[in-house]
This record gives sequence, C-alpha cells and structure tokens, in this order.
Amino acid sequence: MTKIRKIVLSEKDMPRQWYNLAADIKVPPFMSPDGPVPPEAWAPVFPMNLVEQEYSTQRWIDIPEGVLDLLTRWRPAPMHRAYALEEAIGTPARIYYKNESFSPAGSHKGNTAVAQAWYNKQFGIKRLTTETGAGQWGSALAFACALVGLECKVFMVRISFDQKPYRKLIMQTYGAKCFASPSNETQAGKAILAKTPDTPGSLGIAISEAIESAVTDPTGETRYSLGSVLNHVMLHQTIIGLEAKKQLEIAGEKKVDVVIGCVGGGSNFAGLAFPFVYDKINGAKIDIIPVEPASCPSLTKGHYVYDHGDTAKMTPLVAMYSLGHNFMPEPIHAGGLRYHGMAPLVSRAAKEGLISPISIHQLECYEAGMIFAKTEGIIPAPETTHAIAATIREAKKAKEEGKEKVILFNFSGHGLMDLVGYDKYLSGQLKNYDLPDSVIAENFKELEGYPRPE
Amino acid sequence: MTKIRKIVLSEKDMPRQWYNLAADIKVPPFMSPDGPVPPEAWAPVFPMNLVEQEYSTQRWIDIPEGVLDLLTRWRPAPMHRAYALEEAIGTPARIYYKNESFSPAGSHKGNTAVAQAWYNKQFGIKRLTTETGAGQWGSALAFACALVGLECKVFMVRISFDQKPYRKLIMQTYGAKCFASPSNETQAGKAILAKTPDTPGSLGIAISEAIESAVTDPTGETRYSLGSVLNHVMLHQTIIGLEAKKQLEIAGEKKVDVVIGCVGGGSNFAGLAFPFVYDKINGAKIDIIPVEPASCPSLTKGHYVYDHGDTAKMTPLVAMYSLGHNFMPEPIHAGGLRYHGMAPLVSRAAKEGLISPISIHQLECYEAGMIFAKTEGIIPAPETTHAIAATIREAKKAKEEGKEKVILFNFSGHGLMDLVGYDKYLSGQLKNYDLPDSVIAENFKELEGYPRPE
Repeated sequence: MTKIRKIVLSEKDMPRQWYNLAADIKVPPFMSPDGPVPPEAWAPVFPMNLVEQEYSTQRWIDIPEGVLDLLTRWRPAPMHRAYALEEAIGTPARIYYKNESFSPAGSHKGNTAVAQAWYNKQFGIKRLTTETGAGQWGSALAFACALVGLECKVFMVRISFDQKPYRKLIMQTYGAKCFASPSNETQAGKAILAKTPDTPGSLGIAISEAIESAVTDPTGETRYSLGSVLNHVMLHQTIIGLEAKKQLEIAGEKKVDVVIGCVGGGSNFAGLAFPFVYDKINGAKIDIIPVEPASCPSLTKGHYVYDHGDTAKMTPLVAMYSLGHNFMPEPIHAGGLRYHGMAPLVSRAAKEGLISPISIHQLECYEAGMIFAKTEGIIPAPETTHAIAATIREAKKAKEEGKEKVILFNFSGHGLMDLVGYDKYLSGQLKNYDLPDSVIAENFKELEGYPRPE
Repeated sequence: MTKIRKIVLSEKDMPRQWYNLAADIKVPPFMSPDGPVPPEAWAPVFPMNLVEQEYSTQRWIDIPEGVLDLLTRWRPAPMHRAYALEEAIGTPARIYYKNESFSPAGSHKGNTAVAQAWYNKQFGIKRLTTETGAGQWGSALAFACALVGLECKVFMVRISFDQKPYRKLIMQTYGAKCFASPSNETQAGKAILAKTPDTPGSLGIAISEAIESAVTDPTGETRYSLGSVLNHVMLHQTIIGLEAKKQLEIAGEKKVDVVIGCVGGGSNFAGLAFPFVYDKINGAKIDIIPVEPASCPSLTKGHYVYDHGDTAKMTPLVAMYSLGHNFMPEPIHAGGLRYHGMAPLVSRAAKEGLISPISIHQLECYEAGMIFAKTEGIIPAPETTHAIAATIREAKKAKEEGKEKVILFNFSGHGLMDLVGYDKYLSGQLKNYDLPDSVIAENFKELEGYPRPE
C-alpha cells in the first residue's frame, strides 16, 4: 500500500493543553443593564472553575488528567487523507479531514461534554441541565454524565422530541431524563403550556427551562451546561485542531493553505480552526473559512452587535454577529446550524479579518454529502455537508489554478441519525432558502437602544 | 496518563493474509441430490474467484492490495482495554475488545462486503444482489458497492423495510436499490404476493428473490452476495482476530485466556476467534466461547446435520448445527442472531470441541449492554450485548477465583440503529424466551431422509 489514508496518533501523543484564542484577540465583555457582567454573577448557572475558564485570557490551558482520560474513550481522532474524494474531483489539491464522527455520540460535541461534566463533578455538582434542538448536544452530554456519574436533565424542543425518537432514546439509554419542552417541570414551561398547549416548542423556550431548572434547585447542586457559543466551549474543542497539526506534520505537510469548518454556534469550526488562527496571527498565510447555511447567514449577512443569546432575552448581551434574537430560520435540515448568533470568539475573529466566512445553499451541501458518502464512504451529518461543499469548491478552484493546495476540513459528525434529510433530498422535496435583507432590517429594529461593541 | 485505553495499529501494520480454518479442520462438502456439489455448480451464483476461496484449503490467503486499500477506509480497528467495565465489575481480569463499530455501516459486516465487491468487480461483474433482514448486511454491501462502483440490489424483509426506515435510507444514500420483499421484481416474489399480498416477508423469501434476481439476469453480469455462513465470508472476517493478536502483543499480553463473540450466522465470532482456534489446535490453552440467544440456540440445542441454508430449500445441503430450516425464532431484538443454522466452519469447530458455545437470555444481554454504555460509553448493537453478557460472566468468575485472566471479545457493532430494543427493555416490555425441546424434535422430522455428516 503506497497510500496511507488515516494518520493516527497514539494516546501518548495527545495534546496536553488547550489553546485559548482569547489570549490573542480581545472580545468585548458580556453586558447587563448595569454594565459588564462580572464572573461571580454566573455562579448560580455555571460552576466557578468553568466561569474562570470563560473569562481567562491565558493562552495555553492545561487539560486535566481526568479530562484526558475521558477523552481517550475515543480520542485522538484520526485524520484522513481524502484520496477518493480528490480523485472524484480530479484536483491537484491534497484534502485532509479530521474525523470527529467516532465519538460515541457521533459528533465533536463530546469534546466539551466530557470536559464540562468533569469540571462540574470536581466542583461538587450532582446534576446538569441543558437544552437540545436536534438532539446531538443532548446525546453528548448524557454520554458524558453517564461516564463521570452526574444526573442529567435534557429539555428537548417538543417537535424534535416527537420527530426524532432515536436521539431521545440515546439519552435515555445513557440514563438521562429527557423532557419535551415546554414541560411541566418548570414555571416557564407551565406558563407557556397554559397559553399554547399545542406549541412545537423552540430552542429559546428550552434554554429558559434548562436554566430555570438549574438555578431554582434548592440544594444548589445543579448547574446548567451549554454546548456551543461560550469561550470555554471553544477552548475545549481546540483539541481537534491541535491534534490535526501533529497529524499534518506526520503526513509530511509543511503548511496548510485552507482550513474549513461549518458554523452554527461556532464550536466545531473553532475547534479545528483556532490553532490555525493562532498561526495566522503569527504570520502564516492561511485561508480560514467558516461555512454557514445561506438561510441562516449570521456571519455573512448579520451585523456585529450586542444581542441576546436566546429568543427569550434571558441571557446577558453578547458581542457577536447576529441576525437578531427574534430571527426564525427556515426549516432546513442542518438543525445544528440554525442559530441567530455566533460565538463571540468566532465573531471577533471574523470582525478582525482573520477568518473569511461564506454561505452555501442546502442543495449544494446535500449534493456534496452524497459525493462524500460514495467516495470516502461515510454519510455526513447535514451540518458537516456544508464544510464538504466548501472543500469541493476550493478543490475545484485549485484544479482551475493548477495549484497543489493543502485543504483541511472538519468532519464534525456522521449523519446516521439524520437520514430523513437525505431521503427528502433524494426525492426532490428540499429547496434552497435565501434570507431577504428586509427581514434582517426588521429584526434589528429591536436592537436600536442596545450598546454597540467596539 | 498511565492508562492507555486504545491500542491502535497503523495501516502499514495491517495483516497481509487472511487465515483459513478450512486448512486445519475438515468440513463435509455441500450436498445435492446428486452428491457433493462441485465448485463449477456455483458459477451462476458467485464469481469463480470467490468460489475458489470457498473451496480452498490453503491456510494463509493473500489479501489483494485492492481489498487492503478498501479496508483502510476504517481499518485497522482499535482494540480497547475496558478499564471502566473492569472497575464496575471489580474484576482482576483484564478485558479487551476489538471495536468493529467504526466501520461506516456500523459493524464488522464491512470486512467481507468490500472484499466480495472487489472480487466481483475483478471478475467483470456489474451488479450484486443480496437479501437483508434487520438491514446491517444490506447497508454494508451498499457501502462497498458504492466504493468499488457496482450496482446493488437489496431485498429487505418487508416488515423490517416498514419498521426500520433508517436502514433503508442508508442503503439508498449509498446508491443501492432497496426493495421490500416479497417484491414484484422476481417470479418468486410475484407468486407469493399473489397468494398473500399482506405477508410480512421472511429472510427465506428474500434469499430466494436475491438469488433469482442474480441468476436470471440475461446479460450474465449479476451475481449474488451472502453476508455470513459461507467459508469465504469467515475468511474475510479473520482480519479482526489477526489484528487483535498484534494488538495484544503491543499491550504486553503474552497470552489470552478467553475469547468471546456473539453468533447468528457465525461471521463476527469466526472473524475474531479463528486465528485463536489455530493457536488452540497448535497447543495453546484458550477458552473460545460463541454466545447465542437462548431463543435461537442452534449450537447449544441444535443437532449437527445436513440441512438447507434457507427456509425455501433453494440452497444445497450444508453440514452444520441447525434447529431445522423450518425454525421460526421468537421476535427477539437481536435480529442478526435469528438464524436457524450456523456457519459450517463454526459448526465443525464446535463439533470437534475447539470452541465451547453457550446461550444467554435477552434480558441479561440488555442489562449488560446498559452497563457497557454507561461505563465504556458506546451503545452496543443488541447482537453485541450477547458477547458483553458472556464477558461479564467470565469477569465475575475470574473475580470469584481471584484469577488475573485476559478476556478478549468482539464489539461487533454499535446500536444506534437499534434503539427501539433498548426502549422496550427500559420500559419493561421485553421478556425471555426458551426453546422447548418438542419444537426442535418437530423441526427435525423433515430432515429424516437427509444424509448425515460424519
């Protein structure tokens, strides 16, 4: 065999520190009506060891032995050379992808789930609450809680709860309690059910329920956990890119030209890309491309503003690219990318020109997903197809230019729980959506009195 | 980190030859009413390069470079040390498992699927047909055909086709055509539909349709493919055990005491176990344990006879442990283990006392699956839980005896497509089944005039 398809690391070679981009770019603080939000204000919501990470500007943060041990259930993740995809495109580019689909819950979400569960356990917490939309994050946290011995309560948007029974069953098998949101478990849920008993629910409502359920526990032993957006989540994901750097070296690549990831809240992109953003800050020439759905284009059509992280305006204001917290995305199948905002660190990197966002329509993404499945052999999650579609564009460009570029993308998860989207694509039931500028303008009216980030 | 959880091999260290147990134990020939079936009789059904393997008694058979290249899409598979499971049991035993769940279709079936697709392609075949019950084999063959560029037609038992839409969608995403069986695609299917339009179908009917669809293609460019039972399928799976041997050496284990796999048709068990059966033949002291469901106990309650491989009696007679070709297993959730017979090589190894079969009820298996999910973190396929349940029994025995045994089992696949079984287990809807001796006696009446294997 002359072709080596997978570059594997042994557990001994795993990165021992996470990279914190907040050391190298300055993100405006969370804001409340009283001014910047101090760390201690988060105490009822998150354990203080994670709050400390959230506010840290230290560049390299040690990964505790206990977290490393949890990560070795599936990490280090292999990096694949996509020979078959290259051949199908006929490109001179060398394409690599980090394969995050081997995590037991099927995606990169496990990287922060085990870290958050471990830090909560260390802090003496007994129980975590969270929300989940499509179910990927809820599955990952349920898995992590099972491993470290925490109870786990997941509020799952009712329409997903009903339409995606398999995701709910994964959580239950790991021992988590999964409630259709709105539920009778919280005051917020009860109030909404009283008014609209037939509501399909929303991520905003589920977030409200999960936070309420954590902060109202009279024992003080419950905290809330978030699967994306926050700085400490981005931090935990950087193990993806740090592993990839070691693997590129093993593969004999002196440099990488293009780094690609799909973005919803930003965590899988940040995980792969931030260690390369660090290189770029230090003079390397790399195109770093976050890819979002054309129907939910926060980085490419939104504004850099202070906005709430949730629809119900329970969270403090966050400096980020946003489409407005009232934005309701069209029902595209990449559920994990349907978020009105973007992680503050990803937003700031875009604002400073360190990354170059693009958006792609879902039909091109599904087509890319089909090409990938039939060449590389793995069916990608609908979210992941966005990264693949951008990779194919870059590989074709390299072909036109006759350039031997090195392209690296994040294969963030498999699509085995999301096959209904493929079925709709194959039977011609999916269409593309564009977001009219008028809708964005309308959403921003409510933000008029808000502070503006520098 | 002092604990290394996963022993990984690089692609360069992959085994270059399969091990053929038929070199070391003698299996009675396939029989037809005219006597032993000669190789050339299979020509319309299988390509002759695979028929040659089926009849081969050569001990080591080279894995072609083209097959190795296909296997590297996901192989070598990691071997895990099950530290968390050991700790939960409190056993002095060291438990290892080969993780076959990283194959894109989710199980060990990919190992023979890519080999069979490659050999057919080499022989000039354009199209493969097969049957699938629960859908695991159909998914694996669809995946393999996509990679090598063959058309693929899968006849899926109608009740599974209706109840397991995700498996069908995997096959379609890989470009395979999937028909609910009985179908209007074949004479056999049409005849059955005319008589019983509402039939749920059966594996026997689906086999008939798949074979008919292959042998009646007037172009002669179609062949049939089988995912278990046959010698060449066992051969292709031995890469599991051959990798495991290298990995045990890396882990510093001088010997293994117990080797365990679940058995339905026999292929995942054979894949892990046969290289150790070879050691046992050559003097090593190893307990080698195939585990079957108590409701479908072909090795532990069946007889070593000549019987048909299918219900419709289309296949030649096969020397194997069988419950009789009319046996209809109870509806347990481990669909892949519901087969009336057993691979001839596995059967013969049992007959000669080289392996020591046991059977376990499904409730104990699901309980073992839950323990595994919450400790090791991966949700096992219902089939795989049988191997885990037996491993837990052996680990407890080692604890009682105070022995530092080394136990190796095959984690044949993940359960992400089979979560309904876990749901039924958790909600108390599952029960144990035992097979009454009277049923077995009844089934064997039809075999009375058949030849007897020595």
